[in-house]
Amino acid sequence: MDESTQQIKIPAGFRFAGVHCGLKRNPNKEDISLIVCDAPATAAGVYTTNKVFAAPVRWDRSRTPSNKIRAVITNSGNANACTGEQGEKNCAEMAAIVAEHIGAAADDVLVMSTGIIGVQLPMEKIRSGIAAAASQTGTEAPAFIAAARGILTTDNGKKLASRTATIDGRTFQIAGMCKGAGMIAPNMATMLSIVLTDAPLTAEQAQSVLGQVADETFNCIRVDGHMSTNDTLLLLASGAEGGAPLTDSQVDQLQAVMKEACEEMAKLIPADGEGATHLIKIDVEGCATREDAKKIAIEVADSPLVKTAITGGDPNWGRIVSAVGYAGVPFNPLKLELRLNDILLYQEGTPVTFDAKTVSGSIKGSFETHVQLTLFEGDAKARVWASDLTVDYVKFNADYST
Amino acid sequence: MDESTQQIKIPAGFRFAGVHCGLKRNPNKEDISLIVCDAPATAAGVYTTNKVFAAPVRWDRSRTPSNKIRAVITNSGNANACTGEQGEKNCAEMAAIVAEHIGAAADDVLVMSTGIIGVQLPMEKIRSGIAAAASQTGTEAPAFIAAARGILTTDNGKKLASRTATIDGRTFQIAGMCKGAGMIAPNMATMLSIVLTDAPLTAEQAQSVLGQVADETFNCIRVDGHMSTNDTLLLLASGAEGGAPLTDSQVDQLQAVMKEACEEMAKLIPADGEGATHLIKIDVEGCATREDAKKIAIEVADSPLVKTAITGGDPNWGRIVSAVGYAGVPFNPLKLELRLNDILLYQEGTPVTFDAKTVSGSIKGSFETHVQLTLFEGDAKARVWASDLTVDYVKFNADYST
Repeated sequence: MDESTQQIKIPAGFRFAGVHCGLKRNPNKEDISLIVCDAPATAAGVYTTNKVFAAPVRWDRSRTPSNKIRAVITNSGNANACTGEQGEKNCAEMAAIVAEHIGAAADDVLVMSTGIIGVQLPMEKIRSGIAAAASQTGTEAPAFIAAARGILTTDNGKKLASRTATIDGRTFQIAGMCKGAGMIAPNMATMLSIVLTDAPLTAEQAQSVLGQVADETFNCIRVDGHMSTNDTLLLLASGAEGGAPLTDSQVDQLQAVMKEACEEMAKLIPADGEGATHLIKIDVEGCATREDAKKIAIEVADSPLVKTAITGGDPNWGRIVSAVGYAGVPFNPLKLELRLNDILLYQEGTPVTFDAKTVSGSIKGSFETHVQLTLFEGDAKARVWASDLTVDYVKFNADYST
Repeated sequence: MDESTQQIKIPAGFRFAGVHCGLKRNPNKEDISLIVCDAPATAAGVYTTNKVFAAPVRWDRSRTPSNKIRAVITNSGNANACTGEQGEKNCAEMAAIVAEHIGAAADDVLVMSTGIIGVQLPMEKIRSGIAAAASQTGTEAPAFIAAARGILTTDNGKKLASRTATIDGRTFQIAGMCKGAGMIAPNMATMLSIVLTDAPLTAEQAQSVLGQVADETFNCIRVDGHMSTNDTLLLLASGAEGGAPLTDSQVDQLQAVMKEACEEMAKLIPADGEGATHLIKIDVEGCATREDAKKIAIEVADSPLVKTAITGGDPNWGRIVSAVGYAGVPFNPLKLELRLNDILLYQEGTPVTFDAKTVSGSIKGSFETHVQLTLFEGDAKARVWASDLTVDYVKFNADYST
């Protein structure tokens, strides 16, 4: 049991299992992940906005928000995307198999899939995998970890976070798991995450909290700007903490702590982006609206020229400033200010004198690079986390052949 | 004189020069390019929409369309972008120096710059360069070629096209030069192009023709999705053909021929994209509007996963189909159809059986790859040309250090 395993505090009201059923080649890698709710749980979901979306996205979207979810079943190794009518049937069958094992209705089981696109699920393997998982659920860290491993594809390791929120003398546990390294893998696509809490949230509260948290965490990460067909973020609230419903103010406090946990998880994705040698933190401040700030941060995050400059340890402010300029956001370029790792590079529309070696050294000397842009158009801001772009990214994605 | 030099037919009414003045290190590479109009010419311009734009873009934008342009002066090696007030002064001075040499008003001289961002122009070198160019203008191909070389930066060679339009018994010459290999170079930014004709166009006709041609040619190429601060496309019409003003129908015919010339030039840019091993032709058909079709084509063109798949010769339809899905265009994914090099890969929302080796071979065996998408939502279509993404692109842009 490693450090992170010991530290994870798991909300009450849930049981977990992760097993290998043969979707992944390596028998030591779990490919079925099951979370069972002891009693009907509140659930909320946020999904990919891709017009081409997978069967489980369609299934879950029509069933959340809900106040009676009993389980989430996830398979990794196959995305069940672009699989037509048979894919829809297979997704429904996954829910039905789980429902049968735990004594629930299929409609109260959510489904997630991640892996190769355009291949039908091997349902025999899935069936035996679900049976095995259902027979060995546990409430402790090892079971939680196995479930967290069961949603991974090309990730280098599990991605977890947990927090304890103390609100008006009550204690709530929050724990989450996620997967994703960008849409980095051959025909693989997906960011998946499940956040659990024992707080008593209504379906409406859960959906509102999740939407806001997603906007500031999982929707603020970029590896390669290629949106997947399977992105799913779920929140399950068991209410097992046992207290009264939460007031608006208590929900806000819970949301703030949940945001911390989600940001911790979200950052792990670009940090593990295929071939990534830097995690780039982009702060855009002084915008008229948060939407403006986010648009700019995303253009900077997605520019291959900015990414490769960071890869090379080059304080190439021209690439950053010009990316700001094409984000489609109105601003006065003569006021634009740029800092890299806290060093001023550009102010009032003109470059300032700086020691390039010092800035370059600060990029090369740290895994995290901080890009700070200020626009002086208002008070809104946004933060985006991105991977850099390396030779290994290109090799990985070009050398593979379907 | 190579083949392309012999074939270039140069419109009457213009003189050309290209000289080396020391902006580029290599003394054999021209870095000043001058085009002089014998008489006031009609001129139109299309410019970068980047909010951070260079001094010459501001200068030209406020002076086109025009019916009295006398010259275009271009320097390569320095973009005169992000150079503040001094940059504006230097740009105006470039126009003034040319004006003095050719006996015109500075306001009737257009200016283009391309190269490093954020460094002031070395005006002594520019002054002597312009003087040298003005003293040696010629009307023949060698002078035209020298001018075309004078606008290049990291391009592997000159980029030219010419056409003869025969309309209602009259003959018009069209010739153009352009530069750009994407915003591929360290702190370099720019697509520049000048199209010349001897047709008698009014300023209004010229601007309308140029806008429409740009939309279907130079605005349909992508190397890395990073918009430059200096992009400029100019059209100069001398009217030296000597005939009467053109009717609307004659302008349309001229525009069609000009589009051919511009498409020929535009394709040369992604084909010469840094590190490019494939030119990707993306045709999107069956859309409700041309704007929809172009949005989709651009998302496909900009996806690093699509680019690297082509680099690797991988018929990875999942990457292409999922990129279509996030273009923000409404469509029915169950009707989507995809062909790669004329081979059907995806139809009615599901993959079709195809021989992966054959498709892979067709990608690997040709410099050009054809991606054909059909949406069945209407009759509009768009075509975009793109580079693939290779290890050499990343190396070039990461290994450089400012």
